[in-house]
Amino acid sequence: MKALYCHQGQLELMDSYPFPKRDAAEALIRVSLAGICATDLEIKKGYMDFRGVPGHEFVGVVEESNDPTWVGQRIVGEINCACGDCAFCRRGLRNHCPERSVLGILNRDGAFGEFLLLPTANLHPVPGSLSDEEAVFVEPLAAAYQVLEQVKIGAGDRVAVLGDGKLGLLVAQVLAEVTDRLFVIGRHPERAGIISRNAIRFVGVERCEERGFNLVVECTGSPEGLPLALGLLRPRGTLVLKSTVCDKGLLDFSPVVINEITLVGSRCGPFPKALEALVAKKVQVTSLIGEILPLVDGSSAFEKAGRPGSLKIILKNS
Amino acid sequence: MKALYCHQGQLELMDSYPFPKRDAAEALIRVSLAGICATDLEIKKGYMDFRGVPGHEFVGVVEESNDPTWVGQRIVGEINCACGDCAFCRRGLRNHCPERSVLGILNRDGAFGEFLLLPTANLHPVPGSLSDEEAVFVEPLAAAYQVLEQVKIGAGDRVAVLGDGKLGLLVAQVLAEVTDRLFVIGRHPERAGIISRNAIRFVGVERCEERGFNLVVECTGSPEGLPLALGLLRPRGTLVLKSTVCDKGLLDFSPVVINEITLVGSRCGPFPKALEALVAKKVQVTSLIGEILPLVDGSSAFEKAGRPGSLKIILKNS
Repeated sequence: MKALYCHQGQLELMDSYPFPKRDAAEALIRVSLAGICATDLEIKKGYMDFRGVPGHEFVGVVEESNDPTWVGQRIVGEINCACGDCAFCRRGLRNHCPERSVLGILNRDGAFGEFLLLPTANLHPVPGSLSDEEAVFVEPLAAAYQVLEQVKIGAGDRVAVLGDGKLGLLVAQVLAEVTDRLFVIGRHPERAGIISRNAIRFVGVERCEERGFNLVVECTGSPEGLPLALGLLRPRGTLVLKSTVCDKGLLDFSPVVINEITLVGSRCGPFPKALEALVAKKVQVTSLIGEILPLVDGSSAFEKAGRPGSLKIILKNS
Repeated sequence: MKALYCHQGQLELMDSYPFPKRDAAEALIRVSLAGICATDLEIKKGYMDFRGVPGHEFVGVVEESNDPTWVGQRIVGEINCACGDCAFCRRGLRNHCPERSVLGILNRDGAFGEFLLLPTANLHPVPGSLSDEEAVFVEPLAAAYQVLEQVKIGAGDRVAVLGDGKLGLLVAQVLAEVTDRLFVIGRHPERAGIISRNAIRFVGVERCEERGFNLVVECTGSPEGLPLALGLLRPRGTLVLKSTVCDKGLLDFSPVVINEITLVGSRCGPFPKALEALVAKKVQVTSLIGEILPLVDGSSAFEKAGRPGSLKIILKNS
């Protein structure tokens, strides 16, 4: 099958990548659309030392499963494939199973190929009212909802999202459900037009004089984001970290101690909430799409996705 | 008066340092003993760009106050001097008042001189049953109790203190009140003898194979402590940061995000709890004293305090 193969910082289109071998618990899925996210760009740079097919944001159709009710079903899939048996899995923390593989990130080929495998237990049917172009955002939107699972936002809290890229705009829309004191601070304040929400104020990072936020969600995808985010917080404030970056950042940690800041790492989130929000049209996602390109143009798609300020680049299986 | 004056990385004994000028809300205190802590060593290196008399761990006697009931009283003093009027002060967060001065750290001369000034509101009388050698530990012991103010420790939690220096040994004794699954991981496992607590296990950092802690308290005072501490945690674990260091640390932040770690900066703590614990003999402190030297030997005392593995060096006013 066709697939983009990543190894040692190279991304290569292969025409005859080995067809995946399904085990009984897994479904074989034909990928329809797959989104390129910041983590994929980091993986190409060497993050996680991943060797294989990247890609973890996708929508597809089940081609084969031992459970016939799934076959032909349009689905999205959770990316952490857990053992189901360890202390973490038994406590409901399957995303932290130490034995897990992760679609397109760790020990499991991902969505930048014609087909992929996922445990049937990871699948969620896509309601008919959603387009593929909407459903391909379920994974990153779920990651945005994870912020609300981890921190409590009070009515009087001043909240900022640092970074107005794809993830930042998803997180901002999610947070706008629970606060009307929300700033998005980034390099592209003109993006206010992409998501029409009166409650969100967009500010350019260079001219931002806002300070003293109770909560900042760091979505820049850059090592420079963290010290910037710390400077926005008030003492005893909370910083949620969403970026996974390959490079190490040099950080003066003393403000964290002096101001008794709480930092919370945040990763994958609840798929049902993301699906529900898309069905209810609570969140705009298709306006975040920059371009949809065929899988065979993967290298150029990655190049476009890596340009500063690019919107979401999506690969389409022909 | 005699005082150790710190400026641009230099520490200088001055015989005629200007005598402090008290305002109506302040007490003039004759310092009896003052402890040198890791923060003082960092201040000497340039942390906080402090210029003045450092020192913030002390016990002394009130010489002058507008309230005569304080005069002659043996006291310890909280180090954050707040405005009392801002939003933080009104919410009870005086330690985070943006207008504050901090004894021996920020805009206020500290305890490495014959006399110091503190607002009378910051003072706590020292009970007669405590020696000066015990009372001089109230400030760092309060900082250790701050950990319990910020994080909840469950019965089944595995807890580690990283660093077996002075602060680490105080934090360990405090945590041993609420858990019996406690490890101290450091360079001096022989220090198990200094604090006789059966519930605490001491492990050398080089040969430590323990992993998967729910809570780690970082007390190394070194930029290398943070990545080491992250490696000890289980996913969704909590890391409390107590070290303030001058140097920036290079850190790969992705484990914080991937494992959804919570980091909590922790600084000054409740003096009443520390005093109560000392009176009740819950915590051993005098066994942590390395040497007591006269104020005039300040430079050599700093040199000794900076040696790896040194115990607490205390300056005495003659």
